Amino acid sequence: MSSAKKSPARLLGLVCGSMQPGPTCQITDVAGVTVGHFTMKEGDHRTGFTAILPHQGNLFREKLAAAVEVINGFGKSAGLVQVEELGTLETPVLLTNTFSVGTGVNALVKKAIAENSEIGRSTGTVNSLVLECNDGYLSDIQAMALSEADAVSAIESAAADFEQGSVGAGTGMSAFGFKGGIGSASRVFDLDGKTYTLGTLVLSNFGKPGDLVLPDGRMPQPKDVKQAEERGSVIIVLATDAPLESRQLKRIAKRAGAGLARLGAYYGNGSGDIALAFSTAQKINHFEGRDIIARDILHEDRIDTLFKAAAEATQEAVLNSMIASPAMRGRGRNKRPSLADWFAVDD
Amino acid sequence: MSSAKKSPARLLGLVCGSMQPGPTCQITDVAGVTVGHFTMKEGDHRTGFTAILPHQGNLFREKLAAAVEVINGFGKSAGLVQVEELGTLETPVLLTNTFSVGTGVNALVKKAIAENSEIGRSTGTVNSLVLECNDGYLSDIQAMALSEADAVSAIESAAADFEQGSVGAGTGMSAFGFKGGIGSASRVFDLDGKTYTLGTLVLSNFGKPGDLVLPDGRMPQPKDVKQAEERGSVIIVLATDAPLESRQLKRIAKRAGAGLARLGAYYGNGSGDIALAFSTAQKINHFEGRDIIARDILHEDRIDTLFKAAAEATQEAVLNSMIASPAMRGRGRNKRPSLADWFAVDD
Amino acid sequence: MSSAKKSPARLLGLVCGSMQPGPTCQITDVAGVTVGHFTMKEGDHRTGFTAILPHQGNLFREKLAAAVEVINGFGKSAGLVQVEELGTLETPVLLTNTFSVGTGVNALVKKAIAENSEIGRSTGTVNSLVLECNDGYLSDIQAMALSEADAVSAIESAAADFEQGSVGAGTGMSAFGFKGGIGSASRVFDLDGKTYTLGTLVLSNFGKPGDLVLPDGRMPQPKDVKQAEERGSVIIVLATDAPLESRQLKRIAKRAGAGLARLGAYYGNGSGDIALAFSTAQKINHFEGRDIIARDILHEDRIDTLFKAAAEATQEAVLNSMIASPAMRGRGRNKRPSLADWFAVDD
Amino acid sequence: MSSAKKSPARLLGLVCGSMQPGPTCQITDVAGVTVGHFTMKEGDHRTGFTAILPHQGNLFREKLAAAVEVINGFGKSAGLVQVEELGTLETPVLLTNTFSVGTGVNALVKKAIAENSEIGRSTGTVNSLVLECNDGYLSDIQAMALSEADAVSAIESAAADFEQGSVGAGTGMSAFGFKGGIGSASRVFDLDGKTYTLGTLVLSNFGKPGDLVLPDGRMPQPKDVKQAEERGSVIIVLATDAPLESRQLKRIAKRAGAGLARLGAYYGNGSGDIALAFSTAQKINHFEGRDIIARDILHEDRIDTLFKAAAEATQEAVLNSMIASPAMRGRGRNKRPSLADWFAVDD
Repeated sequence: MSSAKKSPARLLGLVCGSMQPGPTCQITDVAGVTVGHFTMKEGDHRTGFTAILPHQGNLFREKLAAAVEVINGFGKSAGLVQVEELGTLETPVLLTNTFSVGTGVNALVKKAIAENSEIGRSTGTVNSLVLECNDGYLSDIQAMALSEADAVSAIESAAADFEQGSVGAGTGMSAFGFKGGIGSASRVFDLDGKTYTLGTLVLSNFGKPGDLVLPDGRMPQPKDVKQAEERGSVIIVLATDAPLESRQLKRIAKRAGAGLARLGAYYGNGSGDIALAFSTAQKINHFEGRDIIARDILHEDRIDTLFKAAAEATQEAVLNSMIASPAMRGRGRNKRPSLADWFAVDD
Repeated sequence: MSSAKKSPARLLGLVCGSMQPGPTCQITDVAGVTVGHFTMKEGDHRTGFTAILPHQGNLFREKLAAAVEVINGFGKSAGLVQVEELGTLETPVLLTNTFSVGTGVNALVKKAIAENSEIGRSTGTVNSLVLECNDGYLSDIQAMALSEADAVSAIESAAADFEQGSVGAGTGMSAFGFKGGIGSASRVFDLDGKTYTLGTLVLSNFGKPGDLVLPDGRMPQPKDVKQAEERGSVIIVLATDAPLESRQLKRIAKRAGAGLARLGAYYGNGSGDIALAFSTAQKINHFEGRDIIARDILHEDRIDTLFKAAAEATQEAVLNSMIASPAMRGRGRNKRPSLADWFAVDD
Repeated sequence: MSSAKKSPARLLGLVCGSMQPGPTCQITDVAGVTVGHFTMKEGDHRTGFTAILPHQGNLFREKLAAAVEVINGFGKSAGLVQVEELGTLETPVLLTNTFSVGTGVNALVKKAIAENSEIGRSTGTVNSLVLECNDGYLSDIQAMALSEADAVSAIESAAADFEQGSVGAGTGMSAFGFKGGIGSASRVFDLDGKTYTLGTLVLSNFGKPGDLVLPDGRMPQPKDVKQAEERGSVIIVLATDAPLESRQLKRIAKRAGAGLARLGAYYGNGSGDIALAFSTAQKINHFEGRDIIARDILHEDRIDTLFKAAAEATQEAVLNSMIASPAMRGRGRNKRPSLADWFAVDD
Repeated sequence: MSSAKKSPARLLGLVCGSMQPGPTCQITDVAGVTVGHFTMKEGDHRTGFTAILPHQGNLFREKLAAAVEVINGFGKSAGLVQVEELGTLETPVLLTNTFSVGTGVNALVKKAIAENSEIGRSTGTVNSLVLECNDGYLSDIQAMALSEADAVSAIESAAADFEQGSVGAGTGMSAFGFKGGIGSASRVFDLDGKTYTLGTLVLSNFGKPGDLVLPDGRMPQPKDVKQAEERGSVIIVLATDAPLESRQLKRIAKRAGAGLARLGAYYGNGSGDIALAFSTAQKINHFEGRDIIARDILHEDRIDTLFKAAAEATQEAVLNSMIASPAMRGRGRNKRPSLADWFAVDD
């Protein structure tokens, strides 16, 4: 299966659920979606930005239907309130460390103004979407080392082909006591005889050491890890080309939580677990001549397929984020083993 | 203005806002919507059912987009959770007293089964919508005197032309120390050059004596009323033929709260203030052959007109519910003066 | 381990998570909580009521802190809105089939009035809590065969010792293509050196055939089951003697969803998955002389233990509901195999 | 009445509601609360920061119960998600223009780290609260002219005595076609024989020209204002020394919306109307030795007084924000008349 090439979990024989993955088993199987990274890995820094571009046009002028599900709200992500109210997304999505949210917001605002000079003048403002996890265990998060230029660099490097693991925002993240980071997966399904795709990209930084459960029931234990309360977070971005309204996208985003739970998570108090879902099916014009617009919408009775896809692809994306990340040593000689190494020893 | 005929507030020169009312200034200005009452006014009973039929077909098979806004949730209304999740309505809407909700639910379930024999057999169940206020001050609510047949009677008597004031569910209600009950209003507006309507129907049973503010700033004081904490509630049903998705209907329903506040309300602790909004623009099939359906949806930037209509029409409907209600004596010789009489004296 | 006696899953060696169960591994390990059933199993009827009494006093006068989490809102449960607003519970909790909610509400209202003559007279009304699943596959749900007396019978038979499986509201329920029903489990933990308990009781009627995953990774397949979309539901009631405010109870209730997901569920579109949590730690007086009351509240940083307990005890309670239910034949010769029989064959 | 000195509305005889104001009729009537401004008024800049310090200690170590109500979510405020989840506040509250949110977040993060070196190291991260309105009509918002030092300056200048009107974040704001800005008000009330205070501070930038209604029914029309859709926003901060849990604070925050509606607002689509409420009654330790903490909580039945106070004080604070603001000319020779001047002419 060619899609296994991009799914390290599948290469190890780990299958999450029963649906078929897309061609590369990545979020970019959804046409038009691209992903870029800026990685900072020097001195005590293990951090970065990851950018998801929902489409390749001007997002402010051509918005997409979107929704947010706050699975657990111990988090500092920016821009969620407006997505909840209006059901649309109008900037690229940035992922980063907790203390670079402000910088990410500034970068997105400036980019939107540069591309749309009417913002804050003849039209309203722009809602920047920046989601975050705390990489402070491996990285000097207090240094706030990332710049606005770094965020732009992640955006500008976005492509359909991208790296998973300890890259971009995922550089310094941890999951279940192992090294975490960026992971992705996808599922395909048919509607009215046509094939559609749902893809996920996660920034994994959650889960207590010892709680991880693999799809086959094994429970990998990281070595030399001080058992500690969960202080992580996980961000899940879900993209699909199926036509959906915001309320439906919110329901789908919620099922990312089922994927996390199957891995052994229970949405710990200190974990900011947030899912963002968008549909690329139809662009919604910022400047629209008509009052009433035509939309295609999934009939609610057919949504279970997308629920299942969301749960499966989230579970697999998290495993991919961990397997794709080699062991890492970071700030203050803190270290995280790799789940990939556990398999090498276990098998 | 002919619409004043059905708006007692307008007959008294009270104008809420600046938008134009529909032909009769009632919720039934929205084509297809009908309203029926069953009134019980004997002995210690001052109660009843009011039924709103969103369209004249089989609602279970042809659902409508809908949404609920819980302005204050001290209430026992049934069926709200599913409307929130699925964004659709599939039965008539019943209004009644707090302790007749169970009876109303039973009546709606039986009616839906009678019309759709597959319910609970080859297809799922049906979600009954019954909203309520507490008429215990004027009526013997403990007696639970209403029957399922009474609910059916309200449904079967539904018509475009209906009575306001102390009828149906409104028979024993109170508002701001005056007699409350059923009131209605409507507003018209243009979208893409075509005229649309938003209508409201309220069951008014809220507001502290002395807090009422008229649109002209006067504050009518009811006589001989013991000042008491608010223990009422108000239900607002909003109908429109403008094409809207559930998220938009929820936003519009929320603006009913602005209409209440302009009357002097602050959503008291003991008041179950709940707004339900639906759009008749498009029927959503229960049994649908296609996976993806075409919808027309209002562009979000044009929604302010509907917000304004919702606030204005709610404010006016409450005034109408009060002015249309003569003074009443009920259970235990409790009584409520009429706001209409206050005007007669005041003018 | 004595607690295994009441946990059929433990008897089979199935362990959910790592926390210790309470003495009987049931919700009634939380002191004061009792459970009663009314079971109807004749002709085409496989249905009933299950009552959970949160404490043994007058619940209207002495309320408990409570919260609801709607995991998926395709459901017709009554009373949720007020729990969400006020954060308290004031009646026993009734579980039943979807079309007996109205009857259950009526029964609870009459019982509350009988015990508190001031309801609807000198004080406000009462909020009845009735939660439901659709047992229409095995039972003639259209018949609406249950009476108010049956609900009262369930309440009056409540005891600390109660039956699990196909009893009460669980009589005709199905889960993952097997027979479902009533199940329970509990977990104990220490706070400030004192032992506390969290218990769950589920009414299981959810899950697609073939999706069930056991804690050891096995996936039991029911035989002779037509693969069908999920049209079930699951109700989870969580009780604890730990002192919590409503917001915390809501967070804990949400973790019941993690327990469901570990079993292979993804909260299907047609499944009304609703969790209700309450704390018995402190009674809140309906008639209270003071304006300000003293409360003990868990420090938020210690809540992870209760999250974990909620997830584990929900997972185990669902397994218990299935293993305790023998195979059943019901309406129209529809039948459900028993998960217990699968183990007998599989082992 | 001495409190009138600080309430320009009272000086003009405009009384909102019937409750008594506190000594200065400002948010700082709540003991421990202070307010500071940084004002930028040069060239095309009419903007700034306003800081509200909920208490004078280390907010990260001693948090306060808090809640957010999103009245309309067309807004870019930061930090709301965590307040919703955890019910606490742990930084000063910054108000500013829409595009200075990122800078405000960065300033608050750095300040918190400087005061708590364990943040992002041995303990979790910190949740910065920055709320915003769009002052782009009078100010060059694209310039993003404010610096982190400016935010710190606002915090460091905080005092019980502070200025209202076109200062700090309010410098370039507009309301109902008039000049808006910073306004404040307070109400006092008794609980268990002791006096408590609820105070509000608003950043007013909302309302369509012509919609403003004064408490006496007059409707001031701004001159020479192009009628335009609402593109504003309003932030309301509510402080009280009454002991409340987060759920109660959220209910109280919601009543700020009633205050806005009484002024003629209906929460326009493009208006980010957000209320934040906190209680200074009890500090919640970040580092807490005990698992269970003692709290005083208002009995729910007594909450109406605080609802009324919230509505009244919000209405008055908005009027104060406008009356305290002289006419202003800003970016591109755009200008806003003063409501104070309207009174001078009208009287």
